[in-house]
Amino acid sequence: MIYCDIGNTSVDLFCAGKRTKLSVDLFDPATLQDEIYFVSVNGAFNERIRNYPNWHDLREQVDWKKYYPTMGIDRIMVCEAVEDGVIVDAGSAITVDVMRGGVYHGGFIALGVRAAQEAYARLSPALDMSFNFEVDLAKMAKNTPDALTVGFLAPLICKIESLGKPLYLTGGDAQLLSRFFTGARVEEDLIFRGMKKLIEKGVKC
Amino acid sequence: MIYCDIGNTSVDLFCAGKRTKLSVDLFDPATLQDEIYFVSVNGAFNERIRNYPNWHDLREQVDWKKYYPTMGIDRIMVCEAVEDGVIVDAGSAITVDVMRGGVYHGGFIALGVRAAQEAYARLSPALDMSFNFEVDLAKMAKNTPDALTVGFLAPLICKIESLGKPLYLTGGDAQLLSRFFTGARVEEDLIFRGMKKLIEKGVKC
Repeated sequence: MIYCDIGNTSVDLFCAGKRTKLSVDLFDPATLQDEIYFVSVNGAFNERIRNYPNWHDLREQVDWKKYYPTMGIDRIMVCEAVEDGVIVDAGSAITVDVMRGGVYHGGFIALGVRAAQEAYARLSPALDMSFNFEVDLAKMAKNTPDALTVGFLAPLICKIESLGKPLYLTGGDAQLLSRFFTGARVEEDLIFRGMKKLIEKGVKC
Repeated sequence: MIYCDIGNTSVDLFCAGKRTKLSVDLFDPATLQDEIYFVSVNGAFNERIRNYPNWHDLREQVDWKKYYPTMGIDRIMVCEAVEDGVIVDAGSAITVDVMRGGVYHGGFIALGVRAAQEAYARLSPALDMSFNFEVDLAKMAKNTPDALTVGFLAPLICKIESLGKPLYLTGGDAQLLSRFFTGARVEEDLIFRGMKKLIEKGVKC
């Protein structure tokens, strides 16, 4: 059994604890003979796999009443992995969601690290600079790179910390952000754990 | 005496309690005969007024050791207006600064409301939507517009509220943001109050 997370640019495969990331344009779905359980945000790719009987869309397993209709399927999967806790998925956007006793309590969407840096750069050439991830977020800043880093990270971390524990970090910037939280668990394969739990339930979640 | 705040696109004049905003391209500095005290972030405009003896640059009055060399002059002016408090200047960027006993304690720079909305829109067409300023920031969101609004505003307000009181709001989005704070004072002319105080001191601040 293979789990597959299909984005706009990459296909992320998870099989027997091993993860393989491939370009969505170069990937040929016919090369996989196993049963594949996938989530996808890529409409064009969905068309390509529509007639492969071994590709199973996990959207159909989701009880959408539990979430909301426009919620990203990848976001739902990381929520499905967690019975109780706060889930931060730090990618191009940073999604923050709260699960309590298996019930979805809502969430929010912040800009991702790169998107925020690019947005500052667009405002003014004086703000076109890299964040300083060594900054002390407890202090107010007295130079521009620190002022941008504190301005982006301190509010976000202040809010996330207020939502309670346990705190799960996943996504490409999980490791980078983990240093700013106390007692956060970095779980890079959280989306696949959610997919696995959903399949194992065998019924609507 | 006229106070003048020169941005990249507009000239903001303040005279006897009255404020007039003009396009920087259409404005002719020769039309003003009074003594004019100005701050400017517009290098091209500075060249145009260099030979007018009645135009006085307030940069020269600032004690830069109190702040930091790359700090925006408009940001310094709103700080100069406040002896003790937290100053939020909500424009294209949102600057947040702390003054205690007339001493600058540092600050940070967040994205402005419009810049944040545009950055979300760039991430995905699914996130290209207006903020919902009626949202309850105390609750986690269960639809996309609320998820974006809470994602942008709730962290920022959480952090600003943690910095103490009194809280001063200024800039184009001050009124819009004021509803989310308890006991904030909206002071639209704060920059001119800072300029006035600086001139009245007559010495380096």
